Amino acid sequence: MKALDRLNEELEKVYLGPLWEKLGKMVTPEPDHEVMPYLWKWETIRKYLLEAGELLRLGRESERRVVYLQNPSLLKQGLIGYSTNTLYVGVQLLLPGEVAPAHRHSQSAIRFIIEGEGAYTAVDGERTYMERGDLILTPAWTWHDHGHEGTEPVIWMDGLDVGLVRNFAGSFFEPYSEDVFPVSVPHNGSTFKYATGALRPVSDRKRKGYPSPLISYKWKTTKQVLENLSKLDPDPYDGYAVDYINPLTGGSADLRIGTTMQKLTPGMHTKAHRHVHSAVYHVLDGEGYTIINGVKFEWAKGDFFILPPWSWHEHVNTGAGDAHLFSINDLPIMERLDLEREEAYDKNGGYQSIIDVFEPLSQV
Amino acid sequence: MKALDRLNEELEKVYLGPLWEKLGKMVTPEPDHEVMPYLWKWETIRKYLLEAGELLRLGRESERRVVYLQNPSLLKQGLIGYSTNTLYVGVQLLLPGEVAPAHRHSQSAIRFIIEGEGAYTAVDGERTYMERGDLILTPAWTWHDHGHEGTEPVIWMDGLDVGLVRNFAGSFFEPYSEDVFPVSVPHNGSTFKYATGALRPVSDRKRKGYPSPLISYKWKTTKQVLENLSKLDPDPYDGYAVDYINPLTGGSADLRIGTTMQKLTPGMHTKAHRHVHSAVYHVLDGEGYTIINGVKFEWAKGDFFILPPWSWHEHVNTGAGDAHLFSINDLPIMERLDLEREEAYDKNGGYQSIIDVFEPLSQV
Amino acid sequence: MKALDRLNEELEKVYLGPLWEKLGKMVTPEPDHEVMPYLWKWETIRKYLLEAGELLRLGRESERRVVYLQNPSLLKQGLIGYSTNTLYVGVQLLLPGEVAPAHRHSQSAIRFIIEGEGAYTAVDGERTYMERGDLILTPAWTWHDHGHEGTEPVIWMDGLDVGLVRNFAGSFFEPYSEDVFPVSVPHNGSTFKYATGALRPVSDRKRKGYPSPLISYKWKTTKQVLENLSKLDPDPYDGYAVDYINPLTGGSADLRIGTTMQKLTPGMHTKAHRHVHSAVYHVLDGEGYTIINGVKFEWAKGDFFILPPWSWHEHVNTGAGDAHLFSINDLPIMERLDLEREEAYDKNGGYQSIIDVFEPLSQV
Amino acid sequence: MKALDRLNEELEKVYLGPLWEKLGKMVTPEPDHEVMPYLWKWETIRKYLLEAGELLRLGRESERRVVYLQNPSLLKQGLIGYSTNTLYVGVQLLLPGEVAPAHRHSQSAIRFIIEGEGAYTAVDGERTYMERGDLILTPAWTWHDHGHEGTEPVIWMDGLDVGLVRNFAGSFFEPYSEDVFPVSVPHNGSTFKYATGALRPVSDRKRKGYPSPLISYKWKTTKQVLENLSKLDPDPYDGYAVDYINPLTGGSADLRIGTTMQKLTPGMHTKAHRHVHSAVYHVLDGEGYTIINGVKFEWAKGDFFILPPWSWHEHVNTGAGDAHLFSINDLPIMERLDLEREEAYDKNGGYQSIIDVFEPLSQV
Repeated sequence: MKALDRLNEELEKVYLGPLWEKLGKMVTPEPDHEVMPYLWKWETIRKYLLEAGELLRLGRESERRVVYLQNPSLLKQGLIGYSTNTLYVGVQLLLPGEVAPAHRHSQSAIRFIIEGEGAYTAVDGERTYMERGDLILTPAWTWHDHGHEGTEPVIWMDGLDVGLVRNFAGSFFEPYSEDVFPVSVPHNGSTFKYATGALRPVSDRKRKGYPSPLISYKWKTTKQVLENLSKLDPDPYDGYAVDYINPLTGGSADLRIGTTMQKLTPGMHTKAHRHVHSAVYHVLDGEGYTIINGVKFEWAKGDFFILPPWSWHEHVNTGAGDAHLFSINDLPIMERLDLEREEAYDKNGGYQSIIDVFEPLSQV
Repeated sequence: MKALDRLNEELEKVYLGPLWEKLGKMVTPEPDHEVMPYLWKWETIRKYLLEAGELLRLGRESERRVVYLQNPSLLKQGLIGYSTNTLYVGVQLLLPGEVAPAHRHSQSAIRFIIEGEGAYTAVDGERTYMERGDLILTPAWTWHDHGHEGTEPVIWMDGLDVGLVRNFAGSFFEPYSEDVFPVSVPHNGSTFKYATGALRPVSDRKRKGYPSPLISYKWKTTKQVLENLSKLDPDPYDGYAVDYINPLTGGSADLRIGTTMQKLTPGMHTKAHRHVHSAVYHVLDGEGYTIINGVKFEWAKGDFFILPPWSWHEHVNTGAGDAHLFSINDLPIMERLDLEREEAYDKNGGYQSIIDVFEPLSQV
Repeated sequence: MKALDRLNEELEKVYLGPLWEKLGKMVTPEPDHEVMPYLWKWETIRKYLLEAGELLRLGRESERRVVYLQNPSLLKQGLIGYSTNTLYVGVQLLLPGEVAPAHRHSQSAIRFIIEGEGAYTAVDGERTYMERGDLILTPAWTWHDHGHEGTEPVIWMDGLDVGLVRNFAGSFFEPYSEDVFPVSVPHNGSTFKYATGALRPVSDRKRKGYPSPLISYKWKTTKQVLENLSKLDPDPYDGYAVDYINPLTGGSADLRIGTTMQKLTPGMHTKAHRHVHSAVYHVLDGEGYTIINGVKFEWAKGDFFILPPWSWHEHVNTGAGDAHLFSINDLPIMERLDLEREEAYDKNGGYQSIIDVFEPLSQV
Repeated sequence: MKALDRLNEELEKVYLGPLWEKLGKMVTPEPDHEVMPYLWKWETIRKYLLEAGELLRLGRESERRVVYLQNPSLLKQGLIGYSTNTLYVGVQLLLPGEVAPAHRHSQSAIRFIIEGEGAYTAVDGERTYMERGDLILTPAWTWHDHGHEGTEPVIWMDGLDVGLVRNFAGSFFEPYSEDVFPVSVPHNGSTFKYATGALRPVSDRKRKGYPSPLISYKWKTTKQVLENLSKLDPDPYDGYAVDYINPLTGGSADLRIGTTMQKLTPGMHTKAHRHVHSAVYHVLDGEGYTIINGVKFEWAKGDFFILPPWSWHEHVNTGAGDAHLFSINDLPIMERLDLEREEAYDKNGGYQSIIDVFEPLSQV
């Protein structure tokens, strides 16, 4: 046995390590990770969710009725609830008359409304009513509960930075003493005050930074801006796309979770690129596919899919109408920590070759 | 003659000064200034402006057809074009078919549209079309020209930080080689991209700070936000009021000139306060009065009036409908230099006694 | 079998998860992590390092001669080279005449000099010479090599954010084409220019943000400031302690890795507290112990120990002279992401009871 | 009389102005100002100051014994105490045993120590002792008094932003109820804590922005940094020069007043340039001259001279030893308001021709 091998072995016994053996594992030439791309069909998610609606009663024992996306490769590593290395996505169902009781946590959360109306999210005592396509924020450590005053089931997407907060051992959670946090502000008050992000009430002159003063970003407005944008040139990688921002900072609406809506016009095929940040997409409407590292992921209205870090990707709209993709990402973190990079795919005119087609698991 | 008096005299001869005699003039217990409040009637301004429309042809000899507000007390000090110590306000007329030729200057400028339509302001090659009640920015050192494709005279308010820039000896001006700066961007493109300040095109992710990416703030939107705000409590000093902001910073729309729109509902009488920053008001519509340091300034649609620094003021709407007051101010500067202060009037329930009524000069 | 159990099972098969079962694992009431506290004796580390000095030749096959601290509990999870969830610490040996060849990586790195002199670190072409107690920065993605012009072995501590960058899939690495990056700047030039952080050369007026313009923080200066501080009241938790800062921002010297030096006077016993951020300590000199979650970790000159996230800790100097503890931490990240919290230990007058004593593994 | 002339006249009567006549006065192609360059000899200032020392007793009637620099051209405009459009400079004498009583004002102030020792400035209860060459800050609205515990007269330079604050009508002043503000902090405590700007006590982790935590910048340190800098290339316009900075921001030590120290080695002749910001110089030691807009201003130890905005200037050291020039300027304001510009003199190899020599007024 060589002397150096023996040294390596001895080091291990005292929990020291020989960097000369391991440097390449710690400091890799390019990002090395276990996050795989994946796609879930809406029919599958919805079916189980409605089933849970029949079987599960909300209360302090089960505070939320949510089916979450579990990245298969991360599950193998024991990482429960991870869609990507940083992001969690769930789909939540609230039935008429129900209350998802008040709590707060150090994780940031966003809601994107998929179907139904008449439900609300209350943030620190202000109720914001939901409509399909709206984005609603419940910033980290704000008290929030959800209630439903309507007549039909409401379903929405939840996005939280579960992985991020777990990586940093920063999770804190607190239930509120009552199911419903006291209402202290007019319903939709923030939206009244900041219906447009370009005007600030003079009484908020001292207000700076986070959380965003705007809690709800209405679909009607977002859709209109995307219509307007369509008169200009599209972004080569994202088509017509906007980030939701906090008008007090010009940064992302939530401090840590990025939120983006993009519109792909019929036939649009964007160029491929990759970036360090990861994302989870939800198809608001339309049909098409996304090629991720050479694999074709076909999507239609309601589907969800995962874009891992540093993965080549390009989008195609194959439908007759516009497709709208909503996504959450961890770009704000990458930028704050100066870890973001982006690279354009420079072969084949910027388009990948398809080497495989993803087959989604259907309901059992 | 006393020894100290002789010393004081000798000092003066060599351009030295005895602080023991002058400290109280340099460092006053409260702001000491020469800016007087004043008010101009719309009929007067408009009459002269239309007259100028007949007598004056636009060109490189006379680049703009503008009648400006000259604060009488500052004129005595030789300060030409000063409305307040920092701000200039003019009223500009552009006739169908005319072009106010392209130039740029280190002064910031804003435009607030008063009457007519069909005219545009072009900023660095992008045309923004004007409608009554819109705010349009021409940030410092951007190329800009104005043109008119409509059929009726268009009149707007100009606001510049002439006094500020002069105080700092920072004036630079450059005419463009052609009358019209080349159009390089789709008309109203910025407005398309930032119709709401809460969404940012992904292609602008790197865009930060100033100038604001939004050049035009439409009256329709501003009015709607003020309607929304009216469901909440009014600000005690300003009624229902918003600042126009740069959605990339949460600060004022222009780096140096503050811009505010306020709505006073019928019968509303705000409380009195004072602040270091000064302002110039324009009455978009409605009628009422403002009490400034005990003097009543009665206003109606179209009028302009000056609020000097550190002056008690309160507003009253005496009309049957809402009154809208647009104003520019130098608050952004005061905040950047940490010079702002505000004080509530604590006597008489927060309301001043009227000791005089201002009589505006009518046209000669 | 209950219907809900069956639903739970079916969900798992299609990589969906029932939040009602798992919420408590994702969103914990307090930080839940696998990072254990640990301590390594200097004799052990040094013995192996010198042995490696005999057995290992530096070159492109083995670029650095470093023995790193491997947290035992994180090793079980397959996390190689992790001292804490975010931080890596190694101890490096460079022999006279050697060169550790030039490369760059997206991980930030700091060096803290433990013994010897005559060696240097070169950052982007500027050589900084090492002396015991100095902190030297090699900011993320800067080219750096180490050389040795002296006559005795030099040993230093390396600190990198390996865990952080891996969690975010952000690792990039590039070797330089030559062993030594060309010298382009006077040796120690940054230190000449920024010997004190309170003065900035006028030619750097435009320089802002990161990386810090100061690359080397000399022990002589740090020691003097700690002496000065000792005339004032100590910090209850850290004694006399300073953070190394970037004088262009007032934030941490490195963008992502926090660096702190603290002095404990003889007999000093600090109060216990805990915080989300984790740390790795190196004992520059002195002897004493630190109680972490009730376990006593005894330390002396040269030792290293790990403070996990959200762990109660207090320090005691049992020696006749001052003790100096240098540490790195991930506080800058926690602050940028708004995840930091701190809590004082409020029982027993602020001091923990000792329930166990850690027994370090001696060399085999 | 022409119709337009008549219109112009009528406008004037109602305090309206014809922009077509005045645009060129308000918006000038280059900075247009009344600030003239000037120079005062130290013998003159000192003689009068000592005379005042005999004639004037300090107290609430005459709080400070200061002879100030009065720019002759600004005096003609009634601007009392203006050295430049924004800056005031005075020279203050304090005799052993005296107290200059406590007050505060919205003007920022800096002190630069010229001769003597044993005196102190107290800022919000902390005394900082003076030595020749030190810079001491008394930030805006901090309580401050000066006392003298030594045996010889102490003389220092005061710099305040009197013109700036007056232009903005922002002056506030308040005398303290006692002559001496209560001492509440250890003498020189800030200096102990921040002897170098690159280390921050952990107990100050939350401290951000202004005022600077460092109140006193010692000459010994500044001189050493200038020595260090002299091993590198000089700045073409300023020789070896540093700005005093606030280590918590990387910006100027005082929020509004810039402070700079420069060293000119024997024979050094810097190149000419101009910038919008103005400055007042004090010759700490050495002899030479500065050419301002073609006029030669000869200076020696102790002299003061004014550099107006946008004026060509270059410095020459004609002495056998180093010359040190301390100066204050309004650059921080220009940068905050985005009004700064700089231009190199591109004729004659970067050097002006001398067209005149300034003759200082000697004492009468």
